Amino acid sequence: MGGDHAPSEVVKGALLAARAGDIDLLLVGQTTVVEAELRQLPHQGLPISIVEAPQVVAMDEHPANALRQKPQSSIAVGLHLLKEGKADAFVSAGSTGGVVAFALATLGMMNGIERPAIGVLYPTAKGQAMLMDGGATADCRPAYLLQFAQLGNRYLERVMGIHRPRVGLLNIGEEEGKGNRLAMEAHKLLKESSLNFVGNIEGKDVFKGEVDLVITDGFTGNVALKLSEGLAEFLLVTLRDTLTRNTLRKALAYFLRPALRRAAEGLDYRRAGGALLLGVQGNVVIAHGRSDAAAIRSAVGRAAKAVQERWLEG
Amino acid sequence: MGGDHAPSEVVKGALLAARAGDIDLLLVGQTTVVEAELRQLPHQGLPISIVEAPQVVAMDEHPANALRQKPQSSIAVGLHLLKEGKADAFVSAGSTGGVVAFALATLGMMNGIERPAIGVLYPTAKGQAMLMDGGATADCRPAYLLQFAQLGNRYLERVMGIHRPRVGLLNIGEEEGKGNRLAMEAHKLLKESSLNFVGNIEGKDVFKGEVDLVITDGFTGNVALKLSEGLAEFLLVTLRDTLTRNTLRKALAYFLRPALRRAAEGLDYRRAGGALLLGVQGNVVIAHGRSDAAAIRSAVGRAAKAVQERWLEG
Repeated sequence: MGGDHAPSEVVKGALLAARAGDIDLLLVGQTTVVEAELRQLPHQGLPISIVEAPQVVAMDEHPANALRQKPQSSIAVGLHLLKEGKADAFVSAGSTGGVVAFALATLGMMNGIERPAIGVLYPTAKGQAMLMDGGATADCRPAYLLQFAQLGNRYLERVMGIHRPRVGLLNIGEEEGKGNRLAMEAHKLLKESSLNFVGNIEGKDVFKGEVDLVITDGFTGNVALKLSEGLAEFLLVTLRDTLTRNTLRKALAYFLRPALRRAAEGLDYRRAGGALLLGVQGNVVIAHGRSDAAAIRSAVGRAAKAVQERWLEG
Repeated sequence: MGGDHAPSEVVKGALLAARAGDIDLLLVGQTTVVEAELRQLPHQGLPISIVEAPQVVAMDEHPANALRQKPQSSIAVGLHLLKEGKADAFVSAGSTGGVVAFALATLGMMNGIERPAIGVLYPTAKGQAMLMDGGATADCRPAYLLQFAQLGNRYLERVMGIHRPRVGLLNIGEEEGKGNRLAMEAHKLLKESSLNFVGNIEGKDVFKGEVDLVITDGFTGNVALKLSEGLAEFLLVTLRDTLTRNTLRKALAYFLRPALRRAAEGLDYRRAGGALLLGVQGNVVIAHGRSDAAAIRSAVGRAAKAVQERWLEG
């Protein structure tokens, strides 16, 4: 029920995922609404069931309020399926804050992990990297950052098949001893850990692909991700304006439009498969609120992969 | 003596500024080196003097070490001229940390301001805005953010001629009550102030131009600025790659190269005139380490404008 294009694009995307992979779908939401969507889409032979959840958490609803007032929301009901072992993973395009709050309350934390973190995969000059925390824990202690790194390391090793992921700490200088107090303390902890810690990484190097995992607190991480999204959009508009300033360029721009669009979409990070909520006891994927069917499909695929690789176990 | 292209581009840029405006130049550095540069450039009739400073602070030198060990560096000597009233403004393309440390030690803070902040002007969809702190004070208390906003407000009103600048607080949600502890507390202070505070601004909206002044701590601000620089570069390279993938596009790309370059350069923020060190008792402009002559010229111009508008007085 969550997201700007729910339920139609969400249902459509889930069906695409079920058709592509070996996935049993539980569609959680208002039964009549979900049924109406299903009637419009071919889904014969697909293993789909609907789980009733009468309430809906609004995108701008305060997470703490939702938690108190909406125990029958699709987020709450879906996460309970996970808790009870009736589902292996939960995917939502709803309110990020809502999903984080309900997941904490319902699933609890993994052993040795004090706070959750959102792991966001993003494109780099050399492929892909993950940044975390993307916004689950705004105020962090140094130990949390170490735990985020351990979580991310495990996910990248087991699910993404990256051997000894290179871990960088987002900071305002390359040298040790740079940064705010949090970053300086976290640097020490990361250096003493058994992780493949390569040191500080500055904002200008985040997209170079020299590390597999960028660690930061949820405030800085969220600002960084949303800034990237906004900047990519701004640059595209600037380019488009420049390109339409005279007739020759206008003609050229026509041929380049697909290329321009592709470059920007890579940065609309959560569109590309959803972000992982790491640290809670369960596989939870948060898709972007603006997700279309293709984005939901890849978010469900990402959740399925996490289940198949059993990264949460042992 | 500071910056990647010092002294040649620095001297060249300073001469351009002197020729364009009503500016008396004091070139601070190793006299023989500066003289050698001057000999290669036409400068007849320009009011130029050289002030000897035998030491040079390296770009990667630790600011605290430089402060102790290099009392005769061009940064130290230049700031002393300011302190003694022999100069009205100081411009450097040298180590940012070095300039901040020496400026604090030499000039001291303005009344009522506890910490310095770097004000960085950047392009938006509607013109220009200023972000501060760009990296002078990594660990901030809420009161510092209020003081940054007051400083930035005064600068934008007096020097840039913006009436009642719209002030936004960089945060991870639009609603009040969002953010880390620092942002939540700062929000309250800004709301109670007499500033034209428009509320929180998310990363994705920073480039939209809905505010004139974006307030954040020096850690987040520095990450945001460097990330923008790195992302603009990354997007350009991605586009260029896409554009050269087949012959037709290759041909098209040839015509578009200038447009692409212009779009990226706007984001290489400190290239466009230098950042202001606000809060210290004097006009200090920090130009990007990679500054060429044109960038130095506009940094000197920015410093001169700050002096002419007497924004520091009363």
